[in-house]
Amino acid sequence: MPFTPTDYLPYDFANRRHIGPSPAEMAEMLAVVGASSLESLIDETVPADIRQEKPLDFGKALSERELLHYMRVVASKNRVLTSLIGQGYHGTVTPPAIQRNILENPAWYTAYTPYQPEISQGRLEALLNFQTMVCDLTGLEIANASLLDEATACAEAMTMAQRVAKSKATAFFVDENCHPQNIAVMRTRAAPLGIEVIVGAPENMAAEAVFGAIFQYPGTHGQVRDFTNQMAALHDAKAVGIVSADPLALTLLKEPGAMGADIAVGSTQRFGVPVGYGGPHAAYMACRDAYKRAMPGRIVGVSVDSHGNKAYRLSLQTREQHIRREKATSNVCTAQALLAVMAGFYAVFHGPEGLKAIAQRIHRKTARLAEGLKQGGFDVRPATFFDTITVEVGPLQQAVLKSAVDEGINLRAVGDTRVGITLDERTRPATIEAVWRAFGITREDKDYTPHYHMPEKMIRTSDFLTHPVFHMNRAETEMMRYMRRLADRDLALDRAMIPLGSCTMKLNSAAEMMPISWREFSLLHPYCPADQAEGYNHMIHDLSAKLCTITGYDAISMQPNSGAQGEYAGLLTIAAYHRANGQDGRNICLIPVNAHGTNPASAQMVGWKVVPVKCDANGSIDLDDFRAKAEQHSDALAGTMITYPSTHGVFEETVKEVCAITHEHGGQVYIDGANMNAMVGLSRPGDLGGDVSHLNLHKTFCIPHGGGGPGMGPIGVKAHLVPHLPGDPNGGEGAVSAAAFGSPSLLPISWAYCLMMGGKGLTQATRVAILNANYIADRLKGAYDVLYRGSKGRVAHECILDVRPFADSAGVTVEDIAKRLIDSGFHAPTMSWPVAGTLMVEPTESETKAELDRFCDAMLSIREEIRAIENGGDAENNALKNAPHTMEDLVRDWDRPYTREQGCFPPGAFRVDKYWPPVNRVDNAYGDRNLICICPPMEEYAEAAE
Amino acid sequence: MPFTPTDYLPYDFANRRHIGPSPAEMAEMLAVVGASSLESLIDETVPADIRQEKPLDFGKALSERELLHYMRVVASKNRVLTSLIGQGYHGTVTPPAIQRNILENPAWYTAYTPYQPEISQGRLEALLNFQTMVCDLTGLEIANASLLDEATACAEAMTMAQRVAKSKATAFFVDENCHPQNIAVMRTRAAPLGIEVIVGAPENMAAEAVFGAIFQYPGTHGQVRDFTNQMAALHDAKAVGIVSADPLALTLLKEPGAMGADIAVGSTQRFGVPVGYGGPHAAYMACRDAYKRAMPGRIVGVSVDSHGNKAYRLSLQTREQHIRREKATSNVCTAQALLAVMAGFYAVFHGPEGLKAIAQRIHRKTARLAEGLKQGGFDVRPATFFDTITVEVGPLQQAVLKSAVDEGINLRAVGDTRVGITLDERTRPATIEAVWRAFGITREDKDYTPHYHMPEKMIRTSDFLTHPVFHMNRAETEMMRYMRRLADRDLALDRAMIPLGSCTMKLNSAAEMMPISWREFSLLHPYCPADQAEGYNHMIHDLSAKLCTITGYDAISMQPNSGAQGEYAGLLTIAAYHRANGQDGRNICLIPVNAHGTNPASAQMVGWKVVPVKCDANGSIDLDDFRAKAEQHSDALAGTMITYPSTHGVFEETVKEVCAITHEHGGQVYIDGANMNAMVGLSRPGDLGGDVSHLNLHKTFCIPHGGGGPGMGPIGVKAHLVPHLPGDPNGGEGAVSAAAFGSPSLLPISWAYCLMMGGKGLTQATRVAILNANYIADRLKGAYDVLYRGSKGRVAHECILDVRPFADSAGVTVEDIAKRLIDSGFHAPTMSWPVAGTLMVEPTESETKAELDRFCDAMLSIREEIRAIENGGDAENNALKNAPHTMEDLVRDWDRPYTREQGCFPPGAFRVDKYWPPVNRVDNAYGDRNLICICPPMEEYAEAAE
Repeated sequence: MPFTPTDYLPYDFANRRHIGPSPAEMAEMLAVVGASSLESLIDETVPADIRQEKPLDFGKALSERELLHYMRVVASKNRVLTSLIGQGYHGTVTPPAIQRNILENPAWYTAYTPYQPEISQGRLEALLNFQTMVCDLTGLEIANASLLDEATACAEAMTMAQRVAKSKATAFFVDENCHPQNIAVMRTRAAPLGIEVIVGAPENMAAEAVFGAIFQYPGTHGQVRDFTNQMAALHDAKAVGIVSADPLALTLLKEPGAMGADIAVGSTQRFGVPVGYGGPHAAYMACRDAYKRAMPGRIVGVSVDSHGNKAYRLSLQTREQHIRREKATSNVCTAQALLAVMAGFYAVFHGPEGLKAIAQRIHRKTARLAEGLKQGGFDVRPATFFDTITVEVGPLQQAVLKSAVDEGINLRAVGDTRVGITLDERTRPATIEAVWRAFGITREDKDYTPHYHMPEKMIRTSDFLTHPVFHMNRAETEMMRYMRRLADRDLALDRAMIPLGSCTMKLNSAAEMMPISWREFSLLHPYCPADQAEGYNHMIHDLSAKLCTITGYDAISMQPNSGAQGEYAGLLTIAAYHRANGQDGRNICLIPVNAHGTNPASAQMVGWKVVPVKCDANGSIDLDDFRAKAEQHSDALAGTMITYPSTHGVFEETVKEVCAITHEHGGQVYIDGANMNAMVGLSRPGDLGGDVSHLNLHKTFCIPHGGGGPGMGPIGVKAHLVPHLPGDPNGGEGAVSAAAFGSPSLLPISWAYCLMMGGKGLTQATRVAILNANYIADRLKGAYDVLYRGSKGRVAHECILDVRPFADSAGVTVEDIAKRLIDSGFHAPTMSWPVAGTLMVEPTESETKAELDRFCDAMLSIREEIRAIENGGDAENNALKNAPHTMEDLVRDWDRPYTREQGCFPPGAFRVDKYWPPVNRVDNAYGDRNLICICPPMEEYAEAAE
Repeated sequence: MPFTPTDYLPYDFANRRHIGPSPAEMAEMLAVVGASSLESLIDETVPADIRQEKPLDFGKALSERELLHYMRVVASKNRVLTSLIGQGYHGTVTPPAIQRNILENPAWYTAYTPYQPEISQGRLEALLNFQTMVCDLTGLEIANASLLDEATACAEAMTMAQRVAKSKATAFFVDENCHPQNIAVMRTRAAPLGIEVIVGAPENMAAEAVFGAIFQYPGTHGQVRDFTNQMAALHDAKAVGIVSADPLALTLLKEPGAMGADIAVGSTQRFGVPVGYGGPHAAYMACRDAYKRAMPGRIVGVSVDSHGNKAYRLSLQTREQHIRREKATSNVCTAQALLAVMAGFYAVFHGPEGLKAIAQRIHRKTARLAEGLKQGGFDVRPATFFDTITVEVGPLQQAVLKSAVDEGINLRAVGDTRVGITLDERTRPATIEAVWRAFGITREDKDYTPHYHMPEKMIRTSDFLTHPVFHMNRAETEMMRYMRRLADRDLALDRAMIPLGSCTMKLNSAAEMMPISWREFSLLHPYCPADQAEGYNHMIHDLSAKLCTITGYDAISMQPNSGAQGEYAGLLTIAAYHRANGQDGRNICLIPVNAHGTNPASAQMVGWKVVPVKCDANGSIDLDDFRAKAEQHSDALAGTMITYPSTHGVFEETVKEVCAITHEHGGQVYIDGANMNAMVGLSRPGDLGGDVSHLNLHKTFCIPHGGGGPGMGPIGVKAHLVPHLPGDPNGGEGAVSAAAFGSPSLLPISWAYCLMMGGKGLTQATRVAILNANYIADRLKGAYDVLYRGSKGRVAHECILDVRPFADSAGVTVEDIAKRLIDSGFHAPTMSWPVAGTLMVEPTESETKAELDRFCDAMLSIREEIRAIENGGDAENNALKNAPHTMEDLVRDWDRPYTREQGCFPPGAFRVDKYWPPVNRVDNAYGDRNLICICPPMEEYAEAAE
């Protein structure tokens, strides 16, 4: 019998699973926006002359099952040995409860940065735990909610020291015992800022010659030194002392604060976060209270809500890059939130006793290992250590390393004649015995070690992790419920659209996420022998090739581990290119006023001067002003930084001209890839005239935002820039991150996305992202003005809603609208950026028509609530000013001119599945006036609960 | 420097993670119960003469990391080939979104059976989707929420047919094309009930000679036959027609309802549930509306809550085994809820178009496979098929099978000269080519197949899955949010204690759960060659040995896949033993009146007569009555079924005497293992005199309840019973389940638990379970009477709270208290069992003191609320009668004599993290009067929402 075959493709990931609107929904939406077809909408939106010529083609797209099968094949090419290389990366045991309930739970990994505190109380509490842990371990007063990696944290500490030091010296001292990658990244950072880096032995530091100094603790080869004298000398010279410390060692060793350190940095990787071939993990930074306003990164703080209840929020946000702009020395804007959350939970999970026990076990094992080697006749150093020793083997270095590999173990080559060994939480007696065998020693590891092999005066005497959260019952039942309670307080993509302009909060699919938990990806050391990472190499090679095809560039560097890092790395690459051409003098950077705040900050970091370029009434670059400034600075023009499509959500038709003018005047063009989700498959920055771009893999390429990180910001460059890309942090020059490929354990996500979407699917995603944005813009027509549109009346993948008129007409601010959206179960769009007092909406292609409609219904209802005020309603006591509404509001007496029903269930809100924010509107000013960045004592909770 | 080593053991799973109370908490709790030490409490609780002599010792307990490492080693001993064996088990693709958000999400897997509908609306909706899917696919009106496996579903259908048929015949016809395991299990079930099983070709069925008949569709060797004539003949003879159908085939083939079938059964395994070496998966059963009250298992239905809003609940609960007792022919009490939920979501995920497309793809591939074999000169049958063909190979059968294994493929041996091949969703062109190669054919699979190879009159013409839920937008974003919304409506162990007496809701730890997702455990076919399952064999062997040590038995059968199945299998074993000894006449079973309801039902199923034994005022067996009845039935005594410690929560001191008396009179003793959590490490049923016991691995050994299944009920027996244990369902005799080891893919959980706890840890868990129960009993002293205590005033691991007096004093029922506990964020204790009008509380060892206190605070507050009524408060309009309170209550006008605060936030309730039930109290009677067991039309939701 002849078949009536269905044309339904059940395994079509792109059109069936990733892209939100179904074909039928798209037809309805096209009718609303008045386009005859999706292609004609795109034609009206994306100027013809910027369209790419060849459609994207990556061959047949994989199904989810095919993807996972292929990923397994690739993963199996990575050889998982036991790495005892150390150098800042350590084996660790991720508690299964944390892996399952945090790392693998979309409620945690799909959340956004907690800028809207009312819907972020859960992860804010988790990050406050992290900060408290850092403060306690380091003995300092203030900690931030994480930085990218230890090496960049060192660089941040260096520039921070320069900001706060009263010393006018321009040199910075670096302990020669710092991890090589830390030194490399500090060197890179110092050069354009005119900082002279002096590397030497701590005892040779000349305090009066420097504005600051950094010391590794314990040293990269295991030395446990007290830096109290150095700190005193630095203070005498009005310079700043920094210690880069292993937090696990700090459970046994005297803390940096007790030595007099002003700043401490380090990596919390070994607190339960797998090494992952280099990242991501959360670095930490802590400092004296006096320096808090100079600290980069995000700080979670404690404030109160409108009813006086305790509430968490991001403090001191005004310190962030967007206000520093032209005089920034940091462009930090991503944290490693998800990893900081994991590390914080690891501390809660183990408590101070557990952490100390783990550290003691490692130390005892290291002592036994050293003893065995000594008895075997080897010269083992140092005499006192925590977890790291170095063994002199003369000409046999390579033989011992190879012999260790044959035993399944990676050791570290130190100099030409020594071998370094660092033990960790995963080290077992069998591991120690295998190491001995690699040195030709046959011996059983069965003794107990009753002594510290540390200087007595270095033993820590102060308490840490004294807050009750670190002493809660640690049964898994209790831990699991604590994690669930915190998750439930937050609103993430697993419950609602997060229509944040410029943030591209799209689906992070389960199939994309699964491989990152696999040991073949998670257990590799970044400095392991290359032949053990063939799976990674294959993936990085193929993903790079695909990204080149997508962008029109010739090569990709995966090293930048955030978007801002990508900008910085890109500009460094341009600067190196100019330098190589004898054009050192080029130091002017043209940046339109609507640029991302990180743009000028990044330019500043490479030592350039920022010259702002005006925008016209349509939000596009004012070409006359641009041309004039390019001519004016022709001799010194280093480059131009633009975003495409513009941060105003428009495909500017002048982009090629802007690039051409820049090139005419000897500059290079940096095209910010933040809006790449509007371009993939349609237009290529490399074709437009871009010389370099970064890609936010955590936006366009599906790496989840993790509640504020991790991110990945690889850069693509044209061929002439390839020789100037960042070098290997472990031996090369110009490194920007600690690991050669940034945070490579995230790359399976982006690669999986490309493999399952295929070229056609990626292009269709772009089209639908544009459709979704236009649908919202048009459904809100008449209620909200869209600030900028293209020449044919279309917006790109996002749109700016102008809500400024309501301030005058009804006293309603953009914040009121943002908070009122919470009542409807939404995260607010981007507020007041790039235009103050507006909302920028980016729905992405992953949202369905039903969800877009729910959002539009909420927005239209808000417009009616504004109109009611305009028509004489109460301007103070209304649902907008009182938003968000909580369950507590329902329980309280209700003395409002609107009903409970109107307050709590505006259009868009789910009924049964209503999301309730745990706090009312949070008082920002209070939190900044009273900065508390560690967990408040329990009494305060009790008060708040009353 | 000398060490101050901490004695904290961070990797001690038993004491650190599994057991709730910390040592400090235990000290406080012992003070409350007035015991000087845990050991002395145990001495007062567990009679000395029943204590086991040797402490449990399983060597060193593993840490979580060691466990996962060891599990990997064992898993790697399983060889994962592509199994094309079919026979009811098929490769399937579990959508990653379902794997991550359901199977690996504690919100789903730690939930209990939805007996309390107000806190179970999410999984009730998911199960209603499942039932709707089953009704639609089979073309019948009523479906239940799943059965254990297809073979037991066949057996249930057979006995159900006997219950409903008007024919008085005692024979039952079984299609010879049924899967062998289905026939085996039906034979086992039929024998003790006096049913004659006639196996034959459908065309030879004599309808007038049978009360019912069952047909496999498609047949086990691929035949696609129409049974319309057989159904008509059966109906003429007042007999019942049953079809066991593959639900995926039903997307293309005429449905059983259209043939006139009265009952349909089958397995939904291939709807996204991995084969798992045999289970667990959800079997289904559907029937005509007229038979609904005779259907075994749970049926989810639609009712209303106290405000008239639509609400789901379990319907017709009175049909369950506890009322049928002595005249039961089914003891079904577990469903496979978690697997039914997965299968239902698979249907939602793919929709009717997707399922049809998948079925078509499989069929086309089978057609191409058959064509290639025919062109290769083979005799391929049948001519029409769905996914299964059989190839005649003469004497080369073994050679072909081996050749296939060499290609990585398992085929099925059929007879001595044929080879069976069944394709599935995972079959790829490369698979087909490999099969061809196994037959010596070199050929590429690249044609398209435009024809059905099915009889034209058999093509399905009716629609299915027409409800909007199967047509919702299928983007992963939407699916993920739907799963989250449903999960959030329910209260599971990830949010609160579930203190259900006799259900042992303990921690299901993440480490225990992880291995079940591994492909080495999840992808094995139950009938694959034994040498491919060495990992499973090793695990089953070691787990069995440990369970023998724990119970004092000599052997374990893993075959029973639920507790009730275990009882049934145990009694069958006893019956077979008597038969072998020429004691067929023994058919009397003594069962105390406080037994689990399944006990008499199971006895009934093996053809025994139940003689109830009285209990004394303490709830213990009335020894005089017992002795008298044993003597009275001495010649016919088959056995005694007891539960230890008793269902009254007491260690009866007479247990050994009861066993001895039974043995004296020639009977065997069945000790129900439901309360094994009070015994492990302290006392062994085998030592007390038990001959056989079942163990609820989903209670004592940490398999999660999954919202009402899966479970595992292996039995332990003394040596003399070993020869009589259930045989292999695939060829042996006396099988009770479809797979030799029941639901083996769950066993890693229980094994992991034993390995990480070690003997000491398991024993300590038992002690703490007893401590926790005594703590609750004593904290509630004065407020609630504990109905039964042991001779020294202690309870075992659970206690019965007598709330009957409040009916008279305040009109407050046990249900009012149960529902009021929801307001405090708790699942109610077991209601009205084993004593009507009481609550039985079992906290387990996994709950912390804080959680126990939260529960006690809630219960004490409820007592005060009752007292207020006793003292003249409103007996109708009060917080107890109005419980549970919902958000809707807060929004509505409040005209109650207590405040919103008092209503919604009683002691015990979390403030910020309050759990809100989505509906008010559900009307049970309404739902039974108006049985609807498929998703209601959307209009009804709309009405309800208004």
